Amino acid sequence: MRCEVLAIGTELLLGQIVDTNSAWIGEQLALSGIDSHYQTKVGDNQGRIVAALRVALGRSDAVICCGGLGPTQDDITREAIASLLGVALERNQSLVGAIEALFAARGRSMPVNNLRQADVPVGAVPIVQTRGTAPGLICPVGASGPPGERSGKVVYAVPGVPHEMRDMVARAVLPDLRARAGSPSVIVSRTLRTWGLSESAVAEMLAPRLEALDQTGGNPTIAFMASGVEGIKVRLTAKAPDAATAQRLLAAEDASLRGVLGARVFGVDEETMEHAVGALLLDRRWTLALAESLTGGLVASRIVSVPGASAWFRGGVVAYAPDVKFGLLGVAPGPVVSAEAAMAMAAGARANLGSDVGLALTGVAGPDEQEGRPAGTVFVGLAMGEIEPDAVELKLAGDRESIRQFAAISALDLLRHRLAARP
Amino acid sequence: MRCEVLAIGTELLLGQIVDTNSAWIGEQLALSGIDSHYQTKVGDNQGRIVAALRVALGRSDAVICCGGLGPTQDDITREAIASLLGVALERNQSLVGAIEALFAARGRSMPVNNLRQADVPVGAVPIVQTRGTAPGLICPVGASGPPGERSGKVVYAVPGVPHEMRDMVARAVLPDLRARAGSPSVIVSRTLRTWGLSESAVAEMLAPRLEALDQTGGNPTIAFMASGVEGIKVRLTAKAPDAATAQRLLAAEDASLRGVLGARVFGVDEETMEHAVGALLLDRRWTLALAESLTGGLVASRIVSVPGASAWFRGGVVAYAPDVKFGLLGVAPGPVVSAEAAMAMAAGARANLGSDVGLALTGVAGPDEQEGRPAGTVFVGLAMGEIEPDAVELKLAGDRESIRQFAAISALDLLRHRLAARP
Repeated sequence: MRCEVLAIGTELLLGQIVDTNSAWIGEQLALSGIDSHYQTKVGDNQGRIVAALRVALGRSDAVICCGGLGPTQDDITREAIASLLGVALERNQSLVGAIEALFAARGRSMPVNNLRQADVPVGAVPIVQTRGTAPGLICPVGASGPPGERSGKVVYAVPGVPHEMRDMVARAVLPDLRARAGSPSVIVSRTLRTWGLSESAVAEMLAPRLEALDQTGGNPTIAFMASGVEGIKVRLTAKAPDAATAQRLLAAEDASLRGVLGARVFGVDEETMEHAVGALLLDRRWTLALAESLTGGLVASRIVSVPGASAWFRGGVVAYAPDVKFGLLGVAPGPVVSAEAAMAMAAGARANLGSDVGLALTGVAGPDEQEGRPAGTVFVGLAMGEIEPDAVELKLAGDRESIRQFAAISALDLLRHRLAARP
Repeated sequence: MRCEVLAIGTELLLGQIVDTNSAWIGEQLALSGIDSHYQTKVGDNQGRIVAALRVALGRSDAVICCGGLGPTQDDITREAIASLLGVALERNQSLVGAIEALFAARGRSMPVNNLRQADVPVGAVPIVQTRGTAPGLICPVGASGPPGERSGKVVYAVPGVPHEMRDMVARAVLPDLRARAGSPSVIVSRTLRTWGLSESAVAEMLAPRLEALDQTGGNPTIAFMASGVEGIKVRLTAKAPDAATAQRLLAAEDASLRGVLGARVFGVDEETMEHAVGALLLDRRWTLALAESLTGGLVASRIVSVPGASAWFRGGVVAYAPDVKFGLLGVAPGPVVSAEAAMAMAAGARANLGSDVGLALTGVAGPDEQEGRPAGTVFVGLAMGEIEPDAVELKLAGDRESIRQFAAISALDLLRHRLAARP
């Protein structure tokens, strides 16, 4: 069973809205064991929607159209599907009643345009709305013809508003698709997130394991994703008759890959570096304070995105001007791009903000050099426990923004390793 | 000229990554006056990539492939394009040198896999990388055949890592596309960036001007783009026989639109809110210090992205834990989500960091309420000149991350208006 997604809306092509719906539907299809080989965006143009549907049905068994079911003249998904199927649109009186009732319940008068939302291609089955006004559609392709000509293919239409779409896909589209697929297999993925290795180094380290998997049928499969400042992701995908078996396959493979990659794995799926640092601090009941120069608050703003960060994050000082380092953080006057300054900043942050751990970053974001140091020179200072503060020097490449981003995650990774080493 | 986008990567279909690249490229194409009618996602499968390229070239003049240029075995965009064009891949020695030099500069040894990135389909021109290892490609379709069979179409390949992709599209792909579009007239765009108005309010204010333009031939044209936390963009696009004439048309229209929109226009093209604030501070030879609670360094990290910010930005305090506000910033103990706390934080930042202006943010990012205040309650405090500090209350909607982002830009916009009012 193959199902494509067709996201409809000129605003998607113009980049005014990022199409997150297709990604969500793609994940749901994978979890249901349904292949999705292509996903397409098309504008509010009937001819092009019909053409895109033809291309999709030529290579897949089902298409989920997302968007274009609203009440205005540029919402033409209903018309496009009717045209594709060569049938008329029929006003469905029970849908008319439901839409009128919804407006009445909200105490608003119904614009006459909204009745367009009750139009259904002949032969299609509406999907009831529970959250908005636009009903969805299940449109069998050619099912009304003589048995020999029935294609068995299907086009779905769901609204583009994400929470309406999600409800309708989960409640009506996926069950219908699974029933049509009639296959019991489940696909489940897990992503291991690593830092400190290049994509090709990860690939080289895992090559023997990939080869072994290939020889035993390739289940789970393994893929790599270079995610820039988020590191290299290693994705495991398992296929099994049921979710529990798939999870067992993933758990075994996860353990075997960690045996090779070790502590370079900092998280799973949606766990970021700052989640990992937070969990380690929480375990030790320690708190963190920051002193940031070149990163200017970037590390802090990543940290506060972690739910519950207030339990372990006290705050920080953005010491952009050198004399703020001397004054507020107690750094001894002198060069500020140095290991000594980084250590003093870390100690100053810890003392001033009353935390257990102080983490500091100072360096040259560029493009110009500073204090005779080239762009990309970064010192990370760390004050932790009873030992003397220390500092690590990094050499980073890229433009101003990349240097800053890489400095932020590298500093968090350093802290992660140091915390893990102190149980 | 029609150009499609083909985003390549199984992780996009599985919803593990949302494809934001196509949206960004779509916006750039629109700004260059190039139509993009379809955008497609396809997985790491050579047969399907080639099939998707065939479909795209059948209905458009150009395709930008995004992703699949990495060094590992599942990066097969190069192979797919060579197969589509019916040519071999050739190892480009100058690219080999560049990749080796990059690894050497970083003091890392090069995995042999990386040499695959120097493979170029015969007849294609590489696009030099400036930020990573994967070169891009410009691949004319059928240009090597006899003149009658030359299609004049073209396939581009750029990396999937967003900052590498953006650099390459702006630097090499768009200029090449515009040259191929080859219309003798020049199309030049300018984007006015506004804050503080809804898209429909901007549309209503500009309606008379749009109507007048329509009646006189529609040059320049005007379009609106709602860009979330970046505000509403108003794009002017002028067509003229030469660039100077187009610029004159734009300048006249710019002046006329500013007459209507006034100080809501904060910047042009790539000028951000923090650029605008920096220019105003620089004019007055004033410096800025921040105190951030719910935004946790977000305002600071936006500010340090402005080149030359060190001339006017001293730094800030990220006061995430309440007692950091009391201790380091001298806020009187009591509720921290209040106008009083915001004013005291602004004054504390100014005093402690020795700046002319202090800007502070405190509030509830949510999802839970705090001190009896609902999520989205934000106080912006301002200490400036000889007058008493004051504070403004904002009511923001959305999730944790949106509230934080809108709080950051709203605070900067408030500072911008206050600075502009004091010459």
